[in-house]
Amino acid sequence: MEKTEVKIGGFGGQGIILTGYIIGKAASIFDKKNATMTQAFGPEARGSACSSQVIISDQPILYPYVKKPKIMVIMSQEAFTKFSPEIDPKGMMLIEEDLVDPQGLPPTVKLHRIPATRIAEELGKKVVLNMIMAGFFTAVTGIVSKEAMRKAVETSVPKGTESLNLMAFEKGYEWGLKQVSN
Amino acid sequence: MEKTEVKIGGFGGQGIILTGYIIGKAASIFDKKNATMTQAFGPEARGSACSSQVIISDQPILYPYVKKPKIMVIMSQEAFTKFSPEIDPKGMMLIEEDLVDPQGLPPTVKLHRIPATRIAEELGKKVVLNMIMAGFFTAVTGIVSKEAMRKAVETSVPKGTESLNLMAFEKGYEWGLKQVSN
Repeated sequence: MEKTEVKIGGFGGQGIILTGYIIGKAASIFDKKNATMTQAFGPEARGSACSSQVIISDQPILYPYVKKPKIMVIMSQEAFTKFSPEIDPKGMMLIEEDLVDPQGLPPTVKLHRIPATRIAEELGKKVVLNMIMAGFFTAVTGIVSKEAMRKAVETSVPKGTESLNLMAFEKGYEWGLKQVSN
Repeated sequence: MEKTEVKIGGFGGQGIILTGYIIGKAASIFDKKNATMTQAFGPEARGSACSSQVIISDQPILYPYVKKPKIMVIMSQEAFTKFSPEIDPKGMMLIEEDLVDPQGLPPTVKLHRIPATRIAEELGKKVVLNMIMAGFFTAVTGIVSKEAMRKAVETSVPKGTESLNLMAFEKGYEWGLKQVSN
């Protein structure tokens, strides 16, 4: 792997930014790769869709802006509409299946679906949606190790919420494993 | 104002990243300036101190890395030790006064203190610490408008938590106004 661009999109309050941060932290601090997370707030940031961009690389990252994401994690329809045209046609997209209808996605893009909102509701906390997606991401992309992601989650969420967030992470991870082994 | 570099430091789980995101969003989307938020996860990201970097500018931002922050918001002693040497000697530092002893800070740096943890505890939710700091930041720096920050908070926090977060923002803002008018 030389350089992988990741984009995470959804609406404000879904924890998009923290998810990107955790992926970058896991890749760099625990997996010893280079990573950056960047937000450029241009006109694209207007409206309710928001995104975070992460680059993971074996080499130092001189230009931190994401151009053509290889991996996209999409958690709202508006984010799908806004960001999906940017995806690498040979890339991979992970969607929250009850919130996103991936209509028009090139068939060359590998699609993975998870009912993360329903899983979050079963855990009694809608706010862990992003951690479920993070676990799912870990299992289906293989770009960061599970151990690194768990450590990044543990050290990045509010004190007292670690075990809930890790539980959500595991639920997403399990769901992802099932898809990958199918 | 040409370009202002802002760095926010604390420990994982304090909401450092979301705070940076909200400042960038407020500056760009609602105040119509240019802004970037960047995380470079290098060796400096190891350990428990974490930070987010925001650049606010009237011009497009070509190089998004923060070199010498004009404004620092510091929420833990470890973050103070790690990041305070980078501050612009003519800069401004905002600290959580019960968590940070700003020993050794050059006297040319303007220091502003707030007991944000105690204020958060009065609100019954420790997790709003970062929103109190965001309100405080708004009042003492004047670099983003209050209205823009309120909108950025509202559209960036989890659904159902908007009013709590705005209340915390206002508490921090009031505290900051008192310091500025003294």
